[in-house]
Amino acid sequence: MAAPAGWRRLLPSLPILQWGRAYDRDTLTGDLVAALIVTIMLIPQSLAYALLAGLPAEVGLYASVAPLVVYALFGTSRVLAVGPVAVVSLMTAAAIGEHAVAGSPAYWAVAITLAFLSGILLLAMGLLRLGFLANFLSHPVISGFITASGLLIAMSQVKTILGIRAEGHDFLELSAAIVSRLDQAQPLTMAIGAASLAFLFWVRQGLKPLLLRGGLGPRTADVLAKAGPVAAIAVTTLLTWACDWPALGVKIVGTVPQGLPPFTLPQWDPDLWRQLAVPALLISVVGFVESVSVGQTLAARRRQRIEPDQELIALGSSNLAAAFTGGFPVTGGFARSVVNFDAGAQTPAAGVFTAIGLLAASLLLTPALYYLPQATLAATIMVAVLSLVDFGILRRTWTYSKPDFLAVLATLLATLALGVEIGLVVGVGVSLALFLLRTSRPHIAEVGLVPGTEHFRNVNRHAVRVSPQVIGLRVDESLYFANARALEDRVNDAVARMPQLAHVVLQCSAINDIDMSALESLEAINHRLRDAGIRLHLTEVKGPVMDRLRNTALLAELGGEVFLTHYQAICRLAPELSRQTPAAGAR
Amino acid sequence: MAAPAGWRRLLPSLPILQWGRAYDRDTLTGDLVAALIVTIMLIPQSLAYALLAGLPAEVGLYASVAPLVVYALFGTSRVLAVGPVAVVSLMTAAAIGEHAVAGSPAYWAVAITLAFLSGILLLAMGLLRLGFLANFLSHPVISGFITASGLLIAMSQVKTILGIRAEGHDFLELSAAIVSRLDQAQPLTMAIGAASLAFLFWVRQGLKPLLLRGGLGPRTADVLAKAGPVAAIAVTTLLTWACDWPALGVKIVGTVPQGLPPFTLPQWDPDLWRQLAVPALLISVVGFVESVSVGQTLAARRRQRIEPDQELIALGSSNLAAAFTGGFPVTGGFARSVVNFDAGAQTPAAGVFTAIGLLAASLLLTPALYYLPQATLAATIMVAVLSLVDFGILRRTWTYSKPDFLAVLATLLATLALGVEIGLVVGVGVSLALFLLRTSRPHIAEVGLVPGTEHFRNVNRHAVRVSPQVIGLRVDESLYFANARALEDRVNDAVARMPQLAHVVLQCSAINDIDMSALESLEAINHRLRDAGIRLHLTEVKGPVMDRLRNTALLAELGGEVFLTHYQAICRLAPELSRQTPAAGAR
Repeated sequence: MAAPAGWRRLLPSLPILQWGRAYDRDTLTGDLVAALIVTIMLIPQSLAYALLAGLPAEVGLYASVAPLVVYALFGTSRVLAVGPVAVVSLMTAAAIGEHAVAGSPAYWAVAITLAFLSGILLLAMGLLRLGFLANFLSHPVISGFITASGLLIAMSQVKTILGIRAEGHDFLELSAAIVSRLDQAQPLTMAIGAASLAFLFWVRQGLKPLLLRGGLGPRTADVLAKAGPVAAIAVTTLLTWACDWPALGVKIVGTVPQGLPPFTLPQWDPDLWRQLAVPALLISVVGFVESVSVGQTLAARRRQRIEPDQELIALGSSNLAAAFTGGFPVTGGFARSVVNFDAGAQTPAAGVFTAIGLLAASLLLTPALYYLPQATLAATIMVAVLSLVDFGILRRTWTYSKPDFLAVLATLLATLALGVEIGLVVGVGVSLALFLLRTSRPHIAEVGLVPGTEHFRNVNRHAVRVSPQVIGLRVDESLYFANARALEDRVNDAVARMPQLAHVVLQCSAINDIDMSALESLEAINHRLRDAGIRLHLTEVKGPVMDRLRNTALLAELGGEVFLTHYQAICRLAPELSRQTPAAGAR
Repeated sequence: MAAPAGWRRLLPSLPILQWGRAYDRDTLTGDLVAALIVTIMLIPQSLAYALLAGLPAEVGLYASVAPLVVYALFGTSRVLAVGPVAVVSLMTAAAIGEHAVAGSPAYWAVAITLAFLSGILLLAMGLLRLGFLANFLSHPVISGFITASGLLIAMSQVKTILGIRAEGHDFLELSAAIVSRLDQAQPLTMAIGAASLAFLFWVRQGLKPLLLRGGLGPRTADVLAKAGPVAAIAVTTLLTWACDWPALGVKIVGTVPQGLPPFTLPQWDPDLWRQLAVPALLISVVGFVESVSVGQTLAARRRQRIEPDQELIALGSSNLAAAFTGGFPVTGGFARSVVNFDAGAQTPAAGVFTAIGLLAASLLLTPALYYLPQATLAATIMVAVLSLVDFGILRRTWTYSKPDFLAVLATLLATLALGVEIGLVVGVGVSLALFLLRTSRPHIAEVGLVPGTEHFRNVNRHAVRVSPQVIGLRVDESLYFANARALEDRVNDAVARMPQLAHVVLQCSAINDIDMSALESLEAINHRLRDAGIRLHLTEVKGPVMDRLRNTALLAELGGEVFLTHYQAICRLAPELSRQTPAAGAR
């Protein structure tokens, strides 16, 4: 049933049919300008993320062409730019690392298979409308995960900038390996890396104000500042070529094949699929969450909106496109989408033009990248990912909510110590467990009558009137299996503590739902109270809850009554409370 | 911190110090009578459950002596009878089956180790006050699990009653194996089994009314009816001895060693411990849940109460006692505790007297059990466990709550098809997933002003006044990570749908908590609305929620205002709504 509904939505409501009709010269200009700027930005980024994923540099270009075009057809965001992104590239490296040696043809084949599986999963989730599953990744978990991923990526680039070899399965191991080989650091490589880093940080922080003071418009200044990595690459590449630095030990990108993205097929290996299933799912979910948050933020600025389930279909198709054109897992990237938006992209056609630009680059430009130092690419990655690192989330959650703080901390530490996949699973597990724990301990207040009114308040916080024969309890939570016994305990407590007790009155105004376990707990409470000669009453039961209770044994066998208001119940069961308060009686 | 608190509670507040002081002749009489009746009932039951667990019959007696005494010292229930029970015996068999051959000395050693681990786990949970964890087993999951366990146990006894051998890993496999060997059924064994079954069912259903009509008091009639299994055992044992039926192929219990329970030690094998950890945990939780529900039900009848965390300590100690005296995992049993209660037990001393009775039985009575046919024991087990089978839970949950129905069905089928351990885990997983799913889709109502009042109601259910510039939204659930995005979606929807929209007003009266994710969602909503020139307002924010929001960016950057009531907000933002209703204006 879900699938046909999905197909119905997919086919006739292709987003392109909406924006395509209104396409005019102005839109075209906006899209072309944006495409040019994004293309310039994406060339180094694509190469860098491919290397981060352990793949040949050109694979980054391949993964940036077809997915962009496919997203333009199916996506609901007008400005989202799809392609390789940092965190997904890191997760890709982690997933493939167990199956093949980085840089080998087998490794690339597994990457293609991973993109294929990720595409299939995203597509299936979209057709089954499972986009809501991403909601179970809480913001603190995402922040902790992204921060830890940023640190992991940055640390992995340090070795390239130092020109040394170092391996490690987790953050500490990798750091230790790097420190222990600091003496092997290659001075010239270090100089190139450090200079690139310094330049890129300056571009990010200092260039834009300078350009603004120089009289440039804020938008032009912004776009120029974004082109910083291209300048760093051009300059270091030229210097490396001119001074023949590779002869001095500087590692370069080397031969990047010229040509169109190849046609590729995923490996049809059920064993491999089974092993890649969990990583593919995690990559899909993380990619989807990142993509949707960027898309939603940008769409809202122009009063547009995106459709999460359609986004799943679009991202799924993009990943399938990546798999069939020699790419690796892709998603909507934050930086590139913001640049696209700021540069004035109006429709997904900008994405198509960007794809054409990158296609041209992979056909014509790759020989120019031969002398590009790897240290420069590492520096561009480091600068990009360090902006993802946000330790402030620890302070903010500590101030605002301790359970959220615990969830961030657990995710952060688990990701650094145990890797991206386990880190993410731990984060989701901890945040769900803490949520369940919170709801399993509902706030149950004993309430008493505020003298002179018909209102009931917590006896611990207000000066209220109570009776030794009657206890009023208010549960501030829907009742379900994990908290039903807490109510039983509370009632048992009252019974054991109040020897004269004859009536237990539950004020149900805050109960939106009572599940089967809670119903049986209430029945058990009712029976036990009856056995002990005490009557159970309910007051202020909400309409929908009452509808479901009507045919149950609870109401049929209830020792007491159901009152419309708690005040009516107390008037009947403990008349002395209201009688002695003339103000209330006078009403 | 938790552990010392646990020890403080454990040592000075031993329950025996409370009831021991008030012990008198009347209490003694009540306890002695109850102990006699329970002893008679427990002799066949203990043997039968030991056989069900795959252990020699005498192990059932051993497991019924020391644990009873230890529970009397530590337990908070006055009438709970601890010993082998059906479901835990089945789980024990499932857990040990992978490590040793049923009936072998190695098998018994593993059973002792399992009781030891279960005891340690229960004790640790008690000292760490983790008793609440049992609340995550919902009633429907327990019902489904117990029903499936009852069916599994009953089916496993069918082969003994038929006198055939049959093995199977799940319900279907076992049933098929039995059916395929029906031709090998042993006629005399079948006759004994069938006659015992018929007699026991008659005792359960027809004997008590008969005795009542015969002039006996209801309590005597009840107790006599409970002694039915003893009669069946006495008669079939005598017949088997007198007619020498073993020579005709009837399987008998055979030699049951005479003597005190032996002193035993668990195996110190870390590998085995690791493999038994999960089964031991599941056995502990199931045993604890069964025990606590029985204990609570019986305690409430006399206005007493039990302390779940102390119960964990008592059950843990009982299991350790079982491990050191040649027993296997035990817990508080339903049938035996109810009989103990009905027969007039006043204090845990009844348990000590029962233990003495069973000790005498294992010293003196065992030779008399030599000729007891296994088919008779199988019949007593079948009759006992079939009372656990409750298919009505499927109908009841179907009527009352579909998610609960799904949880029962999943638990039932998974337990039958995949075994007790996986079945239980599946049940807990499904019920938690369904709960999370429900809370992740909060009810969000668009509200409008009820003309002539200051009240706001759902626009889809009531004739209310709304404005094209203002939308009022009421969320009927606390906001947390899994449902925060639903609110974002709803607001985005409204923005895209209402071109004149200038104000979004969130009525927060039903929001008890806002976690970090929801806070960030609200901030994102606020920013997006501001970017689109729309103002976000909050109304009726609860005190504790407001306290936490006060220092956040949300309030600092809020595009709109915080109003005390929704009506005040609407009066300011859409004055035409209230102005046109003179009645409201007059108030």
